Amino acid sequence: MAMASEFRMTRRIEFSDTDMAGVLHFSRFFVLMESTEHAFFRSLGTSVTATLDGDVIGWPRVSASCDYVSPARFEEEIEIHLSVLKKSAKALTYGFDLKRGDVLVARGRITAACCICNPGEPLRPIRIPDFIADRIEEACCGEA
Amino acid sequence: MAMASEFRMTRRIEFSDTDMAGVLHFSRFFVLMESTEHAFFRSLGTSVTATLDGDVIGWPRVSASCDYVSPARFEEEIEIHLSVLKKSAKALTYGFDLKRGDVLVARGRITAACCICNPGEPLRPIRIPDFIADRIEEACCGEA
Amino acid sequence: MAMASEFRMTRRIEFSDTDMAGVLHFSRFFVLMESTEHAFFRSLGTSVTATLDGDVIGWPRVSASCDYVSPARFEEEIEIHLSVLKKSAKALTYGFDLKRGDVLVARGRITAACCICNPGEPLRPIRIPDFIADRIEEACCGEA
Amino acid sequence: MAMASEFRMTRRIEFSDTDMAGVLHFSRFFVLMESTEHAFFRSLGTSVTATLDGDVIGWPRVSASCDYVSPARFEEEIEIHLSVLKKSAKALTYGFDLKRGDVLVARGRITAACCICNPGEPLRPIRIPDFIADRIEEACCGEA
Repeated sequence: MAMASEFRMTRRIEFSDTDMAGVLHFSRFFVLMESTEHAFFRSLGTSVTATLDGDVIGWPRVSASCDYVSPARFEEEIEIHLSVLKKSAKALTYGFDLKRGDVLVARGRITAACCICNPGEPLRPIRIPDFIADRIEEACCGEA
Repeated sequence: MAMASEFRMTRRIEFSDTDMAGVLHFSRFFVLMESTEHAFFRSLGTSVTATLDGDVIGWPRVSASCDYVSPARFEEEIEIHLSVLKKSAKALTYGFDLKRGDVLVARGRITAACCICNPGEPLRPIRIPDFIADRIEEACCGEA
Repeated sequence: MAMASEFRMTRRIEFSDTDMAGVLHFSRFFVLMESTEHAFFRSLGTSVTATLDGDVIGWPRVSASCDYVSPARFEEEIEIHLSVLKKSAKALTYGFDLKRGDVLVARGRITAACCICNPGEPLRPIRIPDFIADRIEEACCGEA
Repeated sequence: MAMASEFRMTRRIEFSDTDMAGVLHFSRFFVLMESTEHAFFRSLGTSVTATLDGDVIGWPRVSASCDYVSPARFEEEIEIHLSVLKKSAKALTYGFDLKRGDVLVARGRITAACCICNPGEPLRPIRIPDFIADRIEEACCGEA
């Protein structure tokens, strides 16, 4: 699947996400990426915690990575650009560019597997349900 | 119920819990208190997430407060002293003293209500089950 | 100082701020309150990390408290209402009402002391600088 | 540099680090890795926030990644194994295996660059100071 378009969201860096080095803590970049993923799902009219026929659908992470290019500081507005890099039958790989104006702050990637995540049961990988897969195919472009 | 004894735990301040002011973020004091509460339950041979007759027992917070006396910094070892200030039929109130050596760093308080917290159901307040209430009566003293 | 007006901000509950009980973790309410405080300062045309004559101004917390009324869940939009309850020469006390629609979710309070917070120096309490004190007097009403 | 030995630390999963899926949030694995890195530095008799000739030494992250193999849950004890995979003149790459007993939970990697991180100045990459580099060469083996 070729995906030319992207989804964008803007977030201001919070004080509580900085560390004593005066910058956004490196683990919090992953939270910004995840929040963008969730806004992307909402932009498709669904949620990362949808239910289907009584089952709870979830997206446990397979892998996550980030390259840090430039520090992000308190009260800066960071624009997060999400692209779907790969969509297989059972998983999605997102790419994220985090920017402050034209400056690249970081570049990340998350792969998540579609699973049934009922409470008290082991995770069960499934094919991405059609109502989600179709919407991802149709449109990867929005604004939070 | 008079409770003379207390439970103590030591924690080192983590880098990720500091903020750009160079000190432990004020919200993270509550996490230190909670971790001590959970270690206290383990010291009683149980857990804050026990089950009883198939129901999940939990302790939603009613209130929490903290007075900040002295900043806590990266890599400092903080000793957290938990006392059970009040034990009613359905709730517990803990007091916490956070110390660095002899210096008081902060003093906090958490009230938690015993509830059945089954997934997908509304919270249901209950009397504290005997196997927990009795152990709290018996012994409030340990070392993590 | 009587303060009739209030400042409001809306936040969506993030997945990473929930805990295994399926609700916003109780420590994260304090982060929501703080983010609202910081947006309030921005609405006054300043910042909680302003500088004055080369000194870094900061607002270390004296105390914080929260009463929890109703759980907040993933993707819910919470409106946070900030009022300045008390303004003394050197400190501010804020009150916060967190609401989901008309439902009160939590009610909190933070007292913060104005200090010079230069890196490597001990905290030094000061009178709230005029350019901040005056703006707080003038206007406590905005929208983030 | 060949590094056969490794540094190990054990951590119990905290309630506040779980999410509504009932497992350790994927961003918190990076915090566990970082805490192990910092304990490793302490085991060498130094700190990640050492000073040298009045300059603050720090280790900004160049990249971080994690492969998630098995979920980690509240109160589980996770053993984190740190190895120095690469040591160049100005940077270190760590590998981390996170295990619950014999079960691999996750495998991660962090590359950090040695920098002068004086407050108010831009980051300045430097050669790893001898007193740190030598200790890393000598000994990569300890127990927290």
